[in-house]
Amino acid sequence: KGQEKWPKGDEKSWKAALRGVTTESPEISKSIVNHVQTSLARAPYNIDDFGAYQAAALSVRDNLIVNWNSTQLEYSRKSPKRAYYLSLEFLMGRTLSNALLNLGVLDNYSSSLSSLGFSLEDILVQERDAALGNGGLGRLAACYLDSSATQELPVWGYGLRYKYGIFQQLIKADDGTQLEAPDPWLDHQNPWELPRLDVTYEVRFYGNAQRWDEGTGRATWSGGQEVLAVAYDVMIPGYGTKNTNNLRLWESKPKRGFDLQSFNAGNYERSVESSNSAAAITSVLYPNDHTSFGKELRLKQQYFWTAASLADMLRRFKHLEKPISQFAEYNAIQLNDTHPTLAIVELMRILVDEEEVPWDGAWTIVTNTFFFTNHTVLPEALEKWSVPLLEHLLPRHLQIIFDIVSHPAIIRESSLFLQSVEKKFPGDREKLSRLSLIEEGFPKQVRMANLAVVGSRRVNGVAELHSDLVQKNLFPDFVEFYGKSKFGNVTNGITPRRWLDQCNPSLSALITETLKIERNVWLKDLYKLEGLLAHVNDSEFQARWAAVKHQNKERLALFVERQLGIKIDASALFDVQIKRLHEYKRQTLNILGVIHRYLLIKSLKPEERKKVVKKVVFFAGKAAPACTLFKMSTLLPLTIRLIVNVARVINADPDTNQYLSLFFLPDYSVSLAEILIPASDISQHISTAGTEASGTSNMKFCLNGGLLVGTVDGANIEIAEEVGEDNVFFFGHLTPDVEDLRYQHTYHPIPVEEKSPALAHVLNTVSSGIFGGDGVYEPLLNTVRQGDFYILTDDFDSYIRALEMVDEAYSDRTEWIKKSIRTSAKMGKFSSDRAIQDYAQEYWNIESVKL
Amino acid sequence: KGQEKWPKGDEKSWKAALRGVTTESPEISKSIVNHVQTSLARAPYNIDDFGAYQAAALSVRDNLIVNWNSTQLEYSRKSPKRAYYLSLEFLMGRTLSNALLNLGVLDNYSSSLSSLGFSLEDILVQERDAALGNGGLGRLAACYLDSSATQELPVWGYGLRYKYGIFQQLIKADDGTQLEAPDPWLDHQNPWELPRLDVTYEVRFYGNAQRWDEGTGRATWSGGQEVLAVAYDVMIPGYGTKNTNNLRLWESKPKRGFDLQSFNAGNYERSVESSNSAAAITSVLYPNDHTSFGKELRLKQQYFWTAASLADMLRRFKHLEKPISQFAEYNAIQLNDTHPTLAIVELMRILVDEEEVPWDGAWTIVTNTFFFTNHTVLPEALEKWSVPLLEHLLPRHLQIIFDIVSHPAIIRESSLFLQSVEKKFPGDREKLSRLSLIEEGFPKQVRMANLAVVGSRRVNGVAELHSDLVQKNLFPDFVEFYGKSKFGNVTNGITPRRWLDQCNPSLSALITETLKIERNVWLKDLYKLEGLLAHVNDSEFQARWAAVKHQNKERLALFVERQLGIKIDASALFDVQIKRLHEYKRQTLNILGVIHRYLLIKSLKPEERKKVVKKVVFFAGKAAPACTLFKMSTLLPLTIRLIVNVARVINADPDTNQYLSLFFLPDYSVSLAEILIPASDISQHISTAGTEASGTSNMKFCLNGGLLVGTVDGANIEIAEEVGEDNVFFFGHLTPDVEDLRYQHTYHPIPVEEKSPALAHVLNTVSSGIFGGDGVYEPLLNTVRQGDFYILTDDFDSYIRALEMVDEAYSDRTEWIKKSIRTSAKMGKFSSDRAIQDYAQEYWNIESVKL
Repeated sequence: KGQEKWPKGDEKSWKAALRGVTTESPEISKSIVNHVQTSLARAPYNIDDFGAYQAAALSVRDNLIVNWNSTQLEYSRKSPKRAYYLSLEFLMGRTLSNALLNLGVLDNYSSSLSSLGFSLEDILVQERDAALGNGGLGRLAACYLDSSATQELPVWGYGLRYKYGIFQQLIKADDGTQLEAPDPWLDHQNPWELPRLDVTYEVRFYGNAQRWDEGTGRATWSGGQEVLAVAYDVMIPGYGTKNTNNLRLWESKPKRGFDLQSFNAGNYERSVESSNSAAAITSVLYPNDHTSFGKELRLKQQYFWTAASLADMLRRFKHLEKPISQFAEYNAIQLNDTHPTLAIVELMRILVDEEEVPWDGAWTIVTNTFFFTNHTVLPEALEKWSVPLLEHLLPRHLQIIFDIVSHPAIIRESSLFLQSVEKKFPGDREKLSRLSLIEEGFPKQVRMANLAVVGSRRVNGVAELHSDLVQKNLFPDFVEFYGKSKFGNVTNGITPRRWLDQCNPSLSALITETLKIERNVWLKDLYKLEGLLAHVNDSEFQARWAAVKHQNKERLALFVERQLGIKIDASALFDVQIKRLHEYKRQTLNILGVIHRYLLIKSLKPEERKKVVKKVVFFAGKAAPACTLFKMSTLLPLTIRLIVNVARVINADPDTNQYLSLFFLPDYSVSLAEILIPASDISQHISTAGTEASGTSNMKFCLNGGLLVGTVDGANIEIAEEVGEDNVFFFGHLTPDVEDLRYQHTYHPIPVEEKSPALAHVLNTVSSGIFGGDGVYEPLLNTVRQGDFYILTDDFDSYIRALEMVDEAYSDRTEWIKKSIRTSAKMGKFSSDRAIQDYAQEYWNIESVKL
Repeated sequence: KGQEKWPKGDEKSWKAALRGVTTESPEISKSIVNHVQTSLARAPYNIDDFGAYQAAALSVRDNLIVNWNSTQLEYSRKSPKRAYYLSLEFLMGRTLSNALLNLGVLDNYSSSLSSLGFSLEDILVQERDAALGNGGLGRLAACYLDSSATQELPVWGYGLRYKYGIFQQLIKADDGTQLEAPDPWLDHQNPWELPRLDVTYEVRFYGNAQRWDEGTGRATWSGGQEVLAVAYDVMIPGYGTKNTNNLRLWESKPKRGFDLQSFNAGNYERSVESSNSAAAITSVLYPNDHTSFGKELRLKQQYFWTAASLADMLRRFKHLEKPISQFAEYNAIQLNDTHPTLAIVELMRILVDEEEVPWDGAWTIVTNTFFFTNHTVLPEALEKWSVPLLEHLLPRHLQIIFDIVSHPAIIRESSLFLQSVEKKFPGDREKLSRLSLIEEGFPKQVRMANLAVVGSRRVNGVAELHSDLVQKNLFPDFVEFYGKSKFGNVTNGITPRRWLDQCNPSLSALITETLKIERNVWLKDLYKLEGLLAHVNDSEFQARWAAVKHQNKERLALFVERQLGIKIDASALFDVQIKRLHEYKRQTLNILGVIHRYLLIKSLKPEERKKVVKKVVFFAGKAAPACTLFKMSTLLPLTIRLIVNVARVINADPDTNQYLSLFFLPDYSVSLAEILIPASDISQHISTAGTEASGTSNMKFCLNGGLLVGTVDGANIEIAEEVGEDNVFFFGHLTPDVEDLRYQHTYHPIPVEEKSPALAHVLNTVSSGIFGGDGVYEPLLNTVRQGDFYILTDDFDSYIRALEMVDEAYSDRTEWIKKSIRTSAKMGKFSSDRAIQDYAQEYWNIESVKL
């Protein structure tokens, strides 16, 4: 337990030598220059922008550490209940600008750097994104960490330190296909992590689990492979507070390194075998989070991470010197999707086997500790692990899972799940089988979502519609069994610090000026944005609002020109779709819509064309590699290829290219999003209804005054509720229709020519080869022509109509700006501060700790 | 070229922010505490000794960096001729105490640490030795770096950054055998190196070498494997000067890292294949430097290192904007033994193939650039590489080697080695074959020593006797061909900073007081020690001299007690042999002598025993592993086993253990030597005459007032010349006798019983099993009984007599102390400052650069 006393030496000497946060310019310059001299060991006179970035980063890091130390000391001293956010992904993006902003030292660092000859802007772009995530789930985790710290809540994140993160996306010049390269993001040392070489845990795999006698449920697990988990801490500064939370990432290391004997005997391969096998665990972030696949390494990752994290929490809890029975009173653990579900089993193992807590008591602790957030209702995305694989890799955990289901001899019946079910619904065998954690079949599978529900205190979805579907479609039997109160909703949120103030400083300044409220007030209480509604009709304000948007569009245009060498007309309507490539997200619908527009413009006479709303369409996103372990999504890279090749044709067509152009920006990242989002006039969120749990980029676009083209899905619905349906361009079939349409596609198919002649024309044009490819796109086109699982044929015409309405609305520029202002003004609900307070109060029951 | 101007920003802002060296106590405390807070990111109140070491080290490192930067800037500005010391080993030992000493801030750091509650002494021992070497050759390199910096000479070292260094030696408790474990010296980050991730070079292996036309000698080398060399800089502070030189170590890295495609396809092994293959190069220091073996990896190390180092020198040279023809006027490259001989070929390759210098001109540059130090005349230790292996791994280099020998069509004859020989000695085919770089046989072999002689400007041995043998026995034909002036001698030296002032501060203080000369004067001019001769008969001085020795013996006794749990009588005579285990170094002779002494004491009556001089014998040293690639030295671990088991018996024998005890101290290191050397009364340097090139530990012992038991070999001879033969206990046959004795052993063997009954008795006693082992020692004993290549049977009796004379001399304690003082006083010649000045003036032709 932390006590501020000096066990050694003279307290005065220590205190006189301690440093605080550096906030003023002369000290900032000194700190930067000193890092140039010592940490970089470089001669000051030949520092380039990257060196200046490194030195500035190290200087800012020093400040973060001071606050981090004070925060952790205070947490130790006050021993509040803590919450832990377990997520396989944390898509952090860049840190320097965020840290400067949150520490409130942005201007002073900027001027120090300027006196040293560097522009902050040039320096910020030197930082490589931390790509420890691949999509919304990971970025959500990052926003929640930011809000937790800002709200002064004692929350830590736990994740993995992937050596290569997610892959780097390259687009092959000759044919537009996606290439995946490893992302060497740690190559130039990472100033934002603190290696904790003394914080390590041993994690076991394989081996044997020997049960004790039947009365206790205990067992001894031994043998197998032992791997070391080493902690790396990433500091998470709150905005406008000293509170600085922690994200602890685990790296895998061999327990015994290099095998010198094998080396000396000439067998180098063997000498590094155990090193490699251990290092493999945290090498790579699997590029897809929406599919279950039977790969041992992924399961190893999940267990490695949950075991190390729990061991760490246990150690911290033990410093409190409280009885283990009070564990859940001091710890809440949030499971971000099913990836960390093994934590439920691991905590049971620790409590029963190591802490010698009786089974029932252990189960009570466990089910009071965990909370589970579901992120998808797509059946194919529900994680399952085969029983034989679990038995091989984690024999003890499989025993515990079976015991949770129904152990014939162990202890009181109340904690045996299936027995309780049978008691409540006698004789309903189908219900029993639906509720079971084990799915029958060859091989049997463990249903991780069911396990997560059974082992958690509460379960939530991430938007109202989605939480509804979770209860009605995914877990109706559990709702019936446990009652409604176990299930809830926390609509996702985004941090307005990164997604407004940092990425759109001009807009932030305009808002502050207009609201006449300090920036650090409204950025922490986003509902204050409603004050903008009073200014909607102020034409000067409208003009400034529009000017900011235009400036952001020019920034994007310049970025694209530098990247791709093509000039863009910033007066055109900017239409953006950026997210992971996925069938259900329907990038294909968008590109087919672009082709439709192109053909239309092409068919017009030159005078008619002049009436067309000029438009620039942007795509960005990574596709799970075509050739992977997981045998899926082979057609997603084909979608990218189609986009790239359509772009090539239409950008080069002198008849049309002043009215329509198209760009695929490679290697989508948080930093790229920060340039695209403030520049959008409309953005597309066009998932098949009922498939996108929430979406968070929709919130980011709207917060920056972009309007939304979307289906009635996920958080689009709540955004429309807030901003009013007349400010959103909705289209497409609703969730309840989707199942019927799919039934129709399979059993009573209607040819696309009949259903949507416009779409048929587009498909045939692609087949005709005007975008090249020599028939290569046929498999992709055929998913639309036949089966059409994602109902593109059903939605296409209404999609095109929605885009026409966008054109119309955009033509009345003043009305458009008003829509834009109204949209931003009503985004208060979508701050991740609100979301994290929901979790803190309704789920974790934790309170903020003032420093 | 370095110019002190600020290409960017405001020069005043920079200058105001620059830091200097921290020398005063309040700033030192601040610097240490700040490193605790930020670099370690730890709460100050729970820092342990290791944390305090890390923080102090980082604080000292900052100071070193400031001086390092100024030094390198000055070197760049003045563009002096530079020397580069290429050594596969740099046995640096610990850095912190040396850095404090050289920076002159030892006392102030000590008092700052003390006010923070730490004792410097406890903190210094937290540091893990940098074990980038395995014996004298590597430690010599480290002493030379220290002297180069102290003498303000522009010298850089180049070596490899072995991830695991040399192995860690463990002694198995049950039977005393040596176990080898990897030395994870980099596990807790190394504050003493500066990673230079931006200084990298590509190094090629394998591939094809395509000759151009025959007239130029040029070729194109392409394909194969490319590996990246990354620089790590180790700062080398001079003593009492700001000059801080550089030791640049190369780490191998894959050019393309992780293979994501293979990983995604489920083949993890393959995905890390190229990483592993690259990382292997700098994984391990081969535990033996005295044997040629056909291991590709070792050859890869040699080329990797020389190629990266030369590329780095070339880049530096090009900044001078001088014509390439002046390369040798600005660069001298010292080859420390034959390991870096490929540098000769690589420089030819760069000049001819890349710089397009004509062959003759290139050869002139090369042969003016390189200098070669030979370290051994043992025939089995002369490096050779098989032609097929070279052809496979370095096809272009093999072409160049053949061209150097005798290319039929290339250019002027003068640079074709064998043609020139033939011209000088027409018809002498045997001479031609002895001089050739290629040894005939199956397969043919390249003689690296011959290549080094041919490609170097001058060649030297490391002690007078050895340099003589080099000329007379090893390279007589080369001497005849080139003339005597190409060959010279530089007797090795040691740095008195580490090997007196640092390891024996009490003696250093006594010397300063007695000489009445500032410490920093005599430590830089060691001949000043002669002043002690005036005090030899001063009985108060004698007493203080003896007291210092006794205090050092007690320090060692305490160390051993803590390590092995056995008390030692510090009033006994301390007898030390510490060095790599090797047959020619004859640790076996020593242990057989110990057994002889034990048997003798055992045979005495209790009253007689009381007259015996009490003695404690210490051994330490690592043996090349018994089971290795190199198929040699299988009996060396057996010698260790014998020592350990003899120790077990005699230390437990109540009849004798107050008169004789014996210790094998495991895991010999520089730091262990620093405790042992100041505590020795006598030390043993008992190599078979003509086998030990120089030895440097003999100098260290004598500098600390220890006397020498030794053969007439290596630097023992010159030490005796300096201190007088009456102060050295010489024994054994002389070099010219050895060949005759070996002939006799083979063709006219005399049984050991006849030659030395005493030795026969010892051998038989071991065979009898009183030291256990169940016959396990027979192979070792048989090397003495039969063949006896290292002439133990011939030297044993005179060895025993020498030890008896030691006993006798030790009994007259006053006379002994005088001998001790006289010995120290005459060690001026053996300062590495003298040696490095020899190299600077007689070989490299470089001058000191004042800051």
